[in-house]
Amino acid sequence: MLNDDVQVISVDDHVVEPPNVWQDHLPAKFKENGPRGERDDQGRDIWMFEGTPRFNGGLGAVAGKDRKDYGLDPVSYDGMRRGCYDIEARLADMDIDGVEAELCFPTFPGFAGNTFYAAADKELATACVSAYNDWMIDEWCAAAPGRQIPMVLVPFWDVESSAQEVQRVAAKGAKAITFPEAPHNIGLPSFHTTHWDPLFAAAQDADLPLCMHFGSGGTPNVAPDGPFTAAIALFGLNSQQCTVELVNSRIFERFPRLKVALSEGGIGWIPYILERCDYTWERHRYYTGMDTAKRPSEIFREHIYGCFIADDAGLRNIDLIGEDNITFECDYPHSDSNWPHTRKMLGEAMVNVPDDQVRKIVETNARKLFNFPRR
Amino acid sequence: MLNDDVQVISVDDHVVEPPNVWQDHLPAKFKENGPRGERDDQGRDIWMFEGTPRFNGGLGAVAGKDRKDYGLDPVSYDGMRRGCYDIEARLADMDIDGVEAELCFPTFPGFAGNTFYAAADKELATACVSAYNDWMIDEWCAAAPGRQIPMVLVPFWDVESSAQEVQRVAAKGAKAITFPEAPHNIGLPSFHTTHWDPLFAAAQDADLPLCMHFGSGGTPNVAPDGPFTAAIALFGLNSQQCTVELVNSRIFERFPRLKVALSEGGIGWIPYILERCDYTWERHRYYTGMDTAKRPSEIFREHIYGCFIADDAGLRNIDLIGEDNITFECDYPHSDSNWPHTRKMLGEAMVNVPDDQVRKIVETNARKLFNFPRR
Repeated sequence: MLNDDVQVISVDDHVVEPPNVWQDHLPAKFKENGPRGERDDQGRDIWMFEGTPRFNGGLGAVAGKDRKDYGLDPVSYDGMRRGCYDIEARLADMDIDGVEAELCFPTFPGFAGNTFYAAADKELATACVSAYNDWMIDEWCAAAPGRQIPMVLVPFWDVESSAQEVQRVAAKGAKAITFPEAPHNIGLPSFHTTHWDPLFAAAQDADLPLCMHFGSGGTPNVAPDGPFTAAIALFGLNSQQCTVELVNSRIFERFPRLKVALSEGGIGWIPYILERCDYTWERHRYYTGMDTAKRPSEIFREHIYGCFIADDAGLRNIDLIGEDNITFECDYPHSDSNWPHTRKMLGEAMVNVPDDQVRKIVETNARKLFNFPRR
Repeated sequence: MLNDDVQVISVDDHVVEPPNVWQDHLPAKFKENGPRGERDDQGRDIWMFEGTPRFNGGLGAVAGKDRKDYGLDPVSYDGMRRGCYDIEARLADMDIDGVEAELCFPTFPGFAGNTFYAAADKELATACVSAYNDWMIDEWCAAAPGRQIPMVLVPFWDVESSAQEVQRVAAKGAKAITFPEAPHNIGLPSFHTTHWDPLFAAAQDADLPLCMHFGSGGTPNVAPDGPFTAAIALFGLNSQQCTVELVNSRIFERFPRLKVALSEGGIGWIPYILERCDYTWERHRYYTGMDTAKRPSEIFREHIYGCFIADDAGLRNIDLIGEDNITFECDYPHSDSNWPHTRKMLGEAMVNVPDDQVRKIVETNARKLFNFPRR
């Protein structure tokens, strides 16, 4: 069960950037075309970036709303809880929710920086990455010692610059890197190339895990005319695909200390996918060139971490996943979140889980993975 | 445990069609362009169809081979076990394997007839479907009473013809229909339209389940330069996608007696995907128009069946799947098969499953689903 002395660490929450992030942190020459929070002539808060207006989607800031009021329409700052974008309000919302610390993914940049990857001016895009990182470390996290795990973007369209950015931000306290879960899906080399080695080497050297959020490598394959419920239900398949690619790659042979965290993918599918990968490896490794020293499930347990919000199927099969490979997330302020009932619902979900496993899953696995000790 | 009096029914095996199937069963005017088994000038058995040569892939006929000899090269009849294409030899192989009855998917037509869907001459294609069905019912299954469950193709590119074909073959003993798992992926209307209603009505009226084999609606999203082990491990995600589309559709409101069997998709993921679909439905049903009377997991348990070859994760969580929704398969003669050890391995896998559940999963669920009583 979830005892009172266990602190809840959420490894997948989200920050809605305040309008001034990039204007405050970009070098002067990039400010004009860099992201700028504005209010349009219909009274809506928008982002102007490279001359084009963009919106924050409604499902990205629903904490505290009735489910009957969920929707896909754009949302302005005054239509969301202050905790979405204000660190003091966020800490108060975490206190209400019973959450000690969290790791936040960006919103305007996309989960892994795909907004900047799509930018026309890649020099500007790289500057935007560094500006976000400086804001995340020096403002958002600095204002909340011990309660915000600093995760950074990398300019993944340029692997050498990415490695340099990792070194720069590691020196100033970054604890994690967000990275696309399926680079081959977004026009970049796959995990089966050595293209990413400079970045992976930098991440390994700095002991920073790569966090791969579902959706960062594309949307699920879904009938375009189906209800959005189907698409949302299918996003976890991205994490399954990512897992299968990673445990069938040679990355971890080259980087034996590299860690990957799968963000928001759930854990209930992990027993199935590991069993399936091992079964496939048993039968097909000879002619496919995958006659590796380690089985896929071993590779998973040494390098990959899943996380869950509510996942009874996973919690019943912790031994098939690995009690050291599971972490917890709230998803505040997104629509999967149970705010303000996170700690209560987590306690109920884990009532039959042994105390030592609860402590690992809720707190210590995340603290070890992100080198984030108690304050 | 698996007691001796329980008969093993495999709901997903495969027949490699002998070279004469279409020449024997097509109307005279279609014979010239219809599929014809030939031997090419390199001594390889090929299919000529619409003037183009095609091959049987090596992984489609590996029963009895050492795994170190698996491969993707084409295979001729004399390079495969006779049981792949000869019904008497098949029955002997089933006896060796401890399998009482099986349902066979086609090989040259593709799992659901996609070879004919891709044909230039659609009148020929429709004739090829009927020719296959006549061969399957009148020869392959007729030669093995009580041991072969007749499954038929439909000309799914023409929904009215499909409905008519269902009526025609149901009258002569068909017990199941193979149908693409994701029609929206292959250029056809999705499960969220009413396009398929005439076919679904005919299937429901004839009490024929739709069998949706993984791969029949496209290949998994996989890095093109990754090892084939990854692609094979990912095929089960097609069944997950299919399930999510179906339980988020309105099909079963319109056809309350329609059944769908997911073929070769495994079962270990079902607890996760049902939990995820219910969670999504709870949160997002209002604005997505999916405020259905039944929850996705209820829809699944009333209409959808999974099957497995080896799936310890699934067998540990039978209650989360539904003991009435699980069937077994051998996959003979494909590379997932454990021939000739099927019954031995199944017995070992089910040693801790209660006897009444074993009987349902191994035998009676399939007999009920396909209206296929003991001989």
